[in-house]
Parts: sequence; structure tokens; C-alpha cells
Amino acid sequence: MLTLKQIASQVGGTIEGEDVAIRGVAKIEEAQSGDITFLANPKYLKYVKESHASAIVVPETIEDTSGKPCIRAANPYFTFLKIVRLFYPPKKLIDEGVHPTAIVGEGTTLGKDVSIGPYVVIGKNCTVGDRTSLMPGVVIENDVKIGNDCFLYSNVSIRQDTILGNRVIIHCGTVIGSDGFGFAFENGRYHKIPQVGHVVIEDDVEIGANTTIDRATLGETRICQGVKLDNLIQVAHNCTIGENTVIAAQTGISGSTHIGKGVRIGGQVGFAGHQTIGDGAAMGAQSGISKDVEPGVMVSGSPAKPHREMMRIQAATNKLPELLKTIKELKERIQKLEGEKEK
Amino acid sequence: MLTLKQIASQVGGTIEGEDVAIRGVAKIEEAQSGDITFLANPKYLKYVKESHASAIVVPETIEDTSGKPCIRAANPYFTFLKIVRLFYPPKKLIDEGVHPTAIVGEGTTLGKDVSIGPYVVIGKNCTVGDRTSLMPGVVIENDVKIGNDCFLYSNVSIRQDTILGNRVIIHCGTVIGSDGFGFAFENGRYHKIPQVGHVVIEDDVEIGANTTIDRATLGETRICQGVKLDNLIQVAHNCTIGENTVIAAQTGISGSTHIGKGVRIGGQVGFAGHQTIGDGAAMGAQSGISKDVEPGVMVSGSPAKPHREMMRIQAATNKLPELLKTIKELKERIQKLEGEKEK
Amino acid sequence: MLTLKQIASQVGGTIEGEDVAIRGVAKIEEAQSGDITFLANPKYLKYVKESHASAIVVPETIEDTSGKPCIRAANPYFTFLKIVRLFYPPKKLIDEGVHPTAIVGEGTTLGKDVSIGPYVVIGKNCTVGDRTSLMPGVVIENDVKIGNDCFLYSNVSIRQDTILGNRVIIHCGTVIGSDGFGFAFENGRYHKIPQVGHVVIEDDVEIGANTTIDRATLGETRICQGVKLDNLIQVAHNCTIGENTVIAAQTGISGSTHIGKGVRIGGQVGFAGHQTIGDGAAMGAQSGISKDVEPGVMVSGSPAKPHREMMRIQAATNKLPELLKTIKELKERIQKLEGEKEK
Repeated sequence: MLTLKQIASQVGGTIEGEDVAIRGVAKIEEAQSGDITFLANPKYLKYVKESHASAIVVPETIEDTSGKPCIRAANPYFTFLKIVRLFYPPKKLIDEGVHPTAIVGEGTTLGKDVSIGPYVVIGKNCTVGDRTSLMPGVVIENDVKIGNDCFLYSNVSIRQDTILGNRVIIHCGTVIGSDGFGFAFENGRYHKIPQVGHVVIEDDVEIGANTTIDRATLGETRICQGVKLDNLIQVAHNCTIGENTVIAAQTGISGSTHIGKGVRIGGQVGFAGHQTIGDGAAMGAQSGISKDVEPGVMVSGSPAKPHREMMRIQAATNKLPELLKTIKELKERIQKLEGEKEK
Repeated sequence: MLTLKQIASQVGGTIEGEDVAIRGVAKIEEAQSGDITFLANPKYLKYVKESHASAIVVPETIEDTSGKPCIRAANPYFTFLKIVRLFYPPKKLIDEGVHPTAIVGEGTTLGKDVSIGPYVVIGKNCTVGDRTSLMPGVVIENDVKIGNDCFLYSNVSIRQDTILGNRVIIHCGTVIGSDGFGFAFENGRYHKIPQVGHVVIEDDVEIGANTTIDRATLGETRICQGVKLDNLIQVAHNCTIGENTVIAAQTGISGSTHIGKGVRIGGQVGFAGHQTIGDGAAMGAQSGISKDVEPGVMVSGSPAKPHREMMRIQAATNKLPELLKTIKELKERIQKLEGEKEK
Repeated sequence: MLTLKQIASQVGGTIEGEDVAIRGVAKIEEAQSGDITFLANPKYLKYVKESHASAIVVPETIEDTSGKPCIRAANPYFTFLKIVRLFYPPKKLIDEGVHPTAIVGEGTTLGKDVSIGPYVVIGKNCTVGDRTSLMPGVVIENDVKIGNDCFLYSNVSIRQDTILGNRVIIHCGTVIGSDGFGFAFENGRYHKIPQVGHVVIEDDVEIGANTTIDRATLGETRICQGVKLDNLIQVAHNCTIGENTVIAAQTGISGSTHIGKGVRIGGQVGFAGHQTIGDGAAMGAQSGISKDVEPGVMVSGSPAKPHREMMRIQAATNKLPELLKTIKELKERIQKLEGEKEK
């Protein structure tokens, strides 16, 4: 139990209203008396009035908080994040040390204070950085480098020659460095193109569960600093994903596509290969990206177009059944005019 | 080998025609002499005549069975299911007991007659119910509760605080309780929103292979009783999926979406976040659900619309190239009329 | 370091120009001095001039190679593949022999020179062929047959009764033989249809990471010789995929669909169930295949149509907003004509 004042002193922001006691945190729709909640998007302003929360974190721009005690913050979502951590300190998921059943290959070096779980297998000539945790069932092939403070959840597979930076988080079942999909057809069958490149994952990247990132055919597939990938995403060989780009679940990126910095990509988007996506671009969910996208442009639809244009086309398409009737009617009126003329 | 009479006495239904000997079961297209098959959908009635099956399970509504011996049943598919079980009693996949290589954390209690396979890792303070089976490579984090008669296939990962009911089946490689995808942007980078909620899976749920279900940010992600999920599905943080809803492969559900009871969802459907889908609604394959759906409504397309409306729009769209010609022609006829008028 | 002559003597093809020294291989956009690269698609001809590569493998049909030393080959991609292997001989991923922690069930026989990694679990009554490798964390249920020279990467799960041919490659996290998705609704709930069929994978098949292939309800799901499947693909129960068909990532194939030989399928394609796709057909990325496809036909869009027709419809759709204006204008002109007539 903390008072609103105690909370604000730890996370920042200005208090307004009574210094109430706070027992927990909750989403605005679900908050009960004793909870603190937050409002980031003015779109949900109506919830402020309806909410049973005892206090609320709001942006400075909102005037009417219905008399509720609140913390005013420049970035309420970020402030709320810190409040969640106050009430829920991180739980320990794994004991420190190397479990006796873990297998560590020849020539591999482990950093200080690592946590290596049961039945983890690490190949030869790898390095694992300080304070990095590998949960049970993680398999790491030979010649892999993993930085400091990484956390790999259970049943993750890291293929040979992969390089992970610092503070990389990889969720359960994800595969890094699987072979790219490349075959040459000759003599009536496909022959595998050796996939001899590798994957580089820079600092502060987080990758969801059961995602797959293929190694390069030659050279590298690179996931740049601060990128956040959701679950069940496919990244093909030789792609690069620029700094601080975020990609929602089930999106697929074909080979040799280069995505810029700060790009926001919805779920189930598909990218054809060999494309260039500019910095700060955005893709609506389920888009099919068949051409390069200029920096800062928002596209949607399949094949994708600038979002406003796509909206206009979709609006027009919705009127099509009606339009068919209009045209039939116009045709009749023209026929009538033509008939009268002939008389 | 069983006679038709013996089969009917065990699974119910009324026999018509000769009491033939049955050696096996098969789909109607593939059935050979000696097989019993079934017809559930009158659409496939033509197969009855063509089929080499020696007997067939049919609904009461079908009159002409081409003189084939048959079992009449109210629900032929359900009756056939029971016949399959007669010919194929379940095979034992795992030996009873706890394999000596399984690791069970402190404070964890195992029920009666469990089957815990090699290299299974169970965390601390968990409970595993009676007769539950965990196949090799299953990893369960701390504070997980698993009910009775559950079956978790190999390489499944269950994250901390997850609750599974009774008779839950989870196929290989699936991940339950992975972190929700939530980040706050501040000071030029994304900061992880702690995902401190959990996942609740109720009784009689079955979840396919390599599916991912994220834990809630706060509170719970809930999969209700009797839900059936196929392979490679993504369920994001804070979703609820109502009783007896079925979802086909590769569908993705964004955060805080609430799906009602008895909803039928095709493959590769995408749901935007924060939506409400009414009981008994249905979504065609590859739909993009960007708005709430009313109970009982069937939608399709992306963005999705009521199915009939979408059919009309698609039919009109297919006529578009032709329509362009018609309009060009009308324009010329108007021009001609205008020209004549001027004369 | 090899000379161009030495390379050509090993991989075939005719040298043109100076016998330069080659240090490595690279893609044409990334090649530096000392590298050999290739050009397969005349579309990228402009890169030949720009490339810093010291030599280039080109088809016989290209005349102007900008004076660069080259190897002329009938199939440059295939020749390049062999050159990559010269510079990058395969790395050994696993030690020969059976790791002492591997568990091999009763009645299972292992071939000559197998490599079975740590914590591999093989069920009862299986066979594993000569020189086959199973990476750490692979789990194989009972009654599975695996041919010679197969390579199963880490955390792959193979369910009971699966049959793998020779030279089959399966990437990390993939699941073969998971239960098909079939339920009969009766008495207010779904009942599981027992999935008692199995999966057959023929020779020379390669399957990507985190892909799922369901066992048949009855009979078999069959992946024929030489098929190449990418990552995160779903193949449902009772499908067959014909010889030398290639399927890109995240495609989903519903139950009982039969795909012919030499079919090329893009990423994120969805197939409804019970369809027949002819030999040599092709599907554009993100297509939705709701009907049979004739042999040799290229389709695209959702619902899919012959590609040319779809291109025409899409081109017309893009003109729709403009068309609405035209129609409004035509209507006014007709109105004017009608008005004048009345005067």
C-alpha cells in the first residue's frame, strides 16, 4: 500500500486532489476502488468519469478529470510503467549459477553471474555475457556470441555464428539463424543454396515467442538496436530492420528487404523481397507491401497504397453495388434521349 | 473385425440393409470394401453412390443410400467419431510415473498417476493434477497450476502464474503466457511495459502446435471452457475467448479483444485490438476485423463487412473492367447527343 | 584464395577475361574487390557495371559484362551455389555418436554413424537411418521411421507413426504429426475426432523453422519428394503436396487439399479445404485460394483469380474514385439534355 504522494515522489509528476491510499494498478476499464490507472489517449476520456479507480495518471493536456485525484505527467504511459514496477517488482524466474545438467561446449566462456537452467545445451567456442539467463531447453549451436544481461526463455534455438548484443530478450520457442529459403532448380530438382551468412541482433532488441529469423545466404541478417518484434514473425535471409522499429505479430518479411528506423508495422503484414522501407514509415495491419515505401509514409491495403488513397478507394468500392444501379439507370435515360431524338 | 450390428450396438443408431463385416474406417473418397465411412454434409451426397465402402453412417434426412448398408444417426459425424475409437483405441504415448531425469522444483506437488517424461522441467510452487501427462522437453515456470487429465505435448513452454483447468490438451511447441507486446516510447527509445498479468485456460480447451498466448499486462488473458484453437495462432495480452469458440490456424487476435461464445473463426483472420465480437458470430478466412461484430453476424473480407454485403461488393468489383468500357461508351453517346443538340 | 580458372575447373563453365584471384563470394550489390558474384536475372543487369566484384558468373545470353572477368554458365545460380560451397565447406554442427544423455526407447534401432545430440528423446520401436543427425532437444515419439542422411535441428518434435524419407532436413522448432483440427458438436460442446492417421515425408524434403504439419484424421498427410517448405507454414490434416512444390513462409493449407507437382506458392497464402491445385500452378503472395486451380495457371488476390484478370480488376479499382466523379458529371450532362428536351 502506497499513498499517491509516495508514488509521485518515486515516478515523478504533479499530484492533484486528495493524497489517497493506493493498493494496486489496473487498466481503466477494470480498475476498482484502491487502484491507480492511467489515461494516455484522449480518445478514452469518457472512461475517466466512469472508472472506479481511486487515482489516475493523466497527460497535462486534459482539463476535466471529474474531480479524481491524479498525477499529471508528460507521458502518462511511461509514468504508469514505472508505477507498475513499484507494485510488481520483477520475479526471479531462474536460480543463479550453472545447473549441473547444462552442457557447455569446449572453448565456450561464460560471464559473471550467469543463470544457465537445466538441460540447456551450449555449443563450442561460444561466449555468454555477464548476468545473462538461459531458461531450460535453450539450445545454442557453436560459435555464438551472447552479450550481457540477455534473457532467453525456454526452448529458444540459436543457430551457429549468431551474434546477440546486450539486454536482448528472446521469448519461448523462437528460432534465430535458421537457414534462409533459397534453392536453384537444375536437372529436374531443387538444390539447396548453402546459407553461410549469419544473424546479428543488436542491443536492447526484444523478440516475441515462436518467431523465426533466418541467417543470411552470404553476409548478415541484422536486427538493429531497440527493435521490438512480436510473436510468430518471419524475417527472411539478408533483411535489415532499422533502429527502434516495432513489428506486430505474424508479419512476414521476404529476403533482402531493408526496413528503416522507427518504422511501425501492424500485424499480418507481408513484404515482398528486395524492398526498401524508409525511416518513420508505417504499415497498416494485413498490408501487402509490393513496392518501396518512402520515409514517413503510412500505407495500407494489399497491394498497399498510401493510406488516404486506400481509404478513398475502399470508400468508392463500398459504393459499387449502388453505382451499378446508377449506371444502368443512366444507360436507360440515354437510350430514351436517343430514341426521342430519332423520332 | 466387427459386424455392422456390433458397431451400432456400441455407438447407437439404426441399421439399414445387410449386417456386413467391417474391417476399418475411412473417409468417403478413400474408403475401400470392408470399410465403414460417413456422410455428414448432404453436399457430398454424390460420393455415397461412388464410394467403395461396405457401410456408411448417414443422417436421417437422406433417403437414397444407393442400397448400401448403413447406420442412420442424428449426428453422423459424432457417431463416426465413436466408430473411429472402436477401431483405433488410444495409443499410450508415455509411461506412467515421473522419469528420473525430470526436474521438479521446490514446493511443487504432483497429483496421482501423473506421467512426467524425460527432461521435463517444472518450476517451484506448481501443482500438477491427477493423471496429467507432460511429454519430453515441456518446460513449466514457477507458480503454475495444471488441472487433472491434461496432456501437454513435447517442447511446450508454460510461463509463470499460468492456470490450466482440467482436460486441457496443448500440442507441441506452443507457448502459454509469453509477455504481451507493450512498450512506451520515451527519450528516443522504447521502454518495456512490465507484463505482470497471467493466462487462465479453462476446462476442455485444446490448443494446436506452435500457437502463442500472451499473458495480460495486468489482470488476465482468458481462454474459456471448450475453446478449440488450431496451430500457429496468436492471442495477445488481455484477450478473452468465450466458451466453445473455434479458431482456425494462423489467426491473430490483438490486445484486449473480447470474443464471445460459440464464435467460429476461419484461418488467417486478423483482429485489431480492443474489439468486442458477439456470441455466435462468424468470420470468413483471411478477414480483417477492424470493428466490433454483432452477435450472430457472419463477416468476411478485409476490412470485414457482413458477408452478404461483401459478396455483393466483390461481385460488383469483378465487373469493374467491363464497367469502365460501359462508361466510356455512355460518355461517347452523351457527347453525340450534346453535339446533335448544338447543331 | 582461388583463381577464376581453378574455380571454373571445379564448378564448370567457360572463363572470359583475366584469370583473377578470388578471395570470397558475395551478392552482387555487396561484392567487393576480390569477390566473385553472379547474375541470374537479366533484370539486375545494371548491377554488373556498378559492382565492385572481381569476377561474375553470368548466363550465356548476356553480352555486355562491362569487361569484367566472368564465368559463363547455363544456370548461373546453380553454378554460384557450387562456388559458395568451395569457399564455405559445410561446418560440423554436432559430434558423431550417441550422446550419453540421449534417451533411446525400447525396440528402437539406430543406423550407422548417426549423431544423436544431448537430451534427445527417441520413443519406442523407431528406426533412425544411417548418418542421420538429431540436434539437442529433438523429441521423437513412438513408432517413427527416419531415413538416412536426415538432419533434424534443435527442438523439433516428431509425433508417433511419422515416416521420414532420406535426406530430409527439418529446421528448429518444427512439429510434424500434430493432431488434425477436427471436432464434432454434440450436446452443447465439441468432441475431439480422434486423429489416427499419420504424416509421410518423402526423400529430399526440406522444412523450415516453427512450421506445423498435422497428421491425417484417417490415412495420411503426404509431403512428396523434393518439396521445400519455408518457416511458420501450416499444413492441415490429409493434405498432399506434390513433388518439387515450393511454399514460402506463413502460408496455410486447410484440410484435405491436394497440391500438384512443381507448384510455386508465395508467402501468407491461404487455401480453403478440399481443393485441388494442378501441376505447375502458381499463387501470388497473400492469395486466398477458395476454388480449385487448373494446372499451369498463375492466380493472385483474395479471393484469388487468374493473375491477369486480377491485375485488370485492381487497375480498374484504383480508378474508382475518379470514376465516381465521371459518373456524377455524366449524370449532370444527361440531366441537362433531358431538361433541354423538355423546354
